[in-house]
Amino acid sequence: MPLLRIDLAEGRDREQIRSIVDATHRAVVSVLGIPERDRFQIVHEHPAEHIIAQDAGLGFERGNVVMIQIFTQRGRTRQAKQELFRAIADALAGRDAQAAVDAVREHLETTLQTMKQPHLQSYRLAKELR
Amino acid sequence: MPLLRIDLAEGRDREQIRSIVDATHRAVVSVLGIPERDRFQIVHEHPAEHIIAQDAGLGFERGNVVMIQIFTQRGRTRQAKQELFRAIADALAGRDAQAAVDAVREHLETTLQTMKQPHLQSYRLAKELR
Amino acid sequence: MPLLRIDLAEGRDREQIRSIVDATHRAVVSVLGIPERDRFQIVHEHPAEHIIAQDAGLGFERGNVVMIQIFTQRGRTRQAKQELFRAIADALAGRDAQAAVDAVREHLETTLQTMKQPHLQSYRLAKELR
Repeated sequence: MPLLRIDLAEGRDREQIRSIVDATHRAVVSVLGIPERDRFQIVHEHPAEHIIAQDAGLGFERGNVVMIQIFTQRGRTRQAKQELFRAIADALAGRDAQAAVDAVREHLETTLQTMKQPHLQSYRLAKELR
Repeated sequence: MPLLRIDLAEGRDREQIRSIVDATHRAVVSVLGIPERDRFQIVHEHPAEHIIAQDAGLGFERGNVVMIQIFTQRGRTRQAKQELFRAIADALAGRDAQAAVDAVREHLETTLQTMKQPHLQSYRLAKELR
Repeated sequence: MPLLRIDLAEGRDREQIRSIVDATHRAVVSVLGIPERDRFQIVHEHPAEHIIAQDAGLGFERGNVVMIQIFTQRGRTRQAKQELFRAIADALAGRDAQAAVDAVREHLETTLQTMKQPHLQSYRLAKELR
């Protein structure tokens, strides 16, 4: 029974948001092996200036950020977490150009090296993703 | 000093929301034995489509969901957590029909078997609860 | 890569909010020794009645509360956490009267004695802080 908070800036329409949350859920189901209807997601729309997400010193500019915070049980292995975040990135980036996939991947891998915490990951979506 | 985030869909009036947060707080005070004024609650109202809460495969439809996420200290026993979630469910369901109580109880018990994490529990309120 | 959720009541203008989030970030960078651009902050504005923060029995009234919830890696020492919360309190209170500093300090120290959890701290800002 993971709970996801999905924070994004205003400006996407209802269908775009639904597409993001659906793709995210499919990735979670696939990697964690939970039932399809084990789905708990909360979407927070914010004025753009209320989401501040910089590059952690990695040398890129972030665009239209989606922050995904996952609260789940303890005991996921590091590998499961890596798979989870790659799958989410792929699912979302797959909605867009290959450039986005690469950008997301690069950042995800860097992030995974430094995160020790199972219940928080936040990551970048490329500027092109709407 | 627990912090509760209470996420619910728009459509309840101010008094209904206050009744939910008050009942929740009374349950928390009672079970955790904290001071009455050790109260930190944040309410997030969302468009209905921004709260997605399904049945985790248990075979029911969710209605007007309230999600309660509790951040608290480590070290609560499993029993204290069970009591806490039962008390919240009772407090909220008590505002409504017995059917709601039963529905909430059933789901809570299932949930408690699978959650290992002290600082997150989210649960269903029955459709009838407003 | 800490993530901060900053919850506050509606009524501050854009510049006041920016000042709060900037000061908070400077404190986090300074104490945790993270890169300047390792910055992930989400601001939630709420109707005033949607943030309930009482005094935990310490005998004061809270005014215009800002709640800051920090999600970060495990393994910070207790001392690092204490420094972090003092630095944030100082950074924010420094924008205001000395009375605010004292009030914040007092509450922070009490809080730190009872919190065992690295990824949540919430605290009071004095009424005078806008």
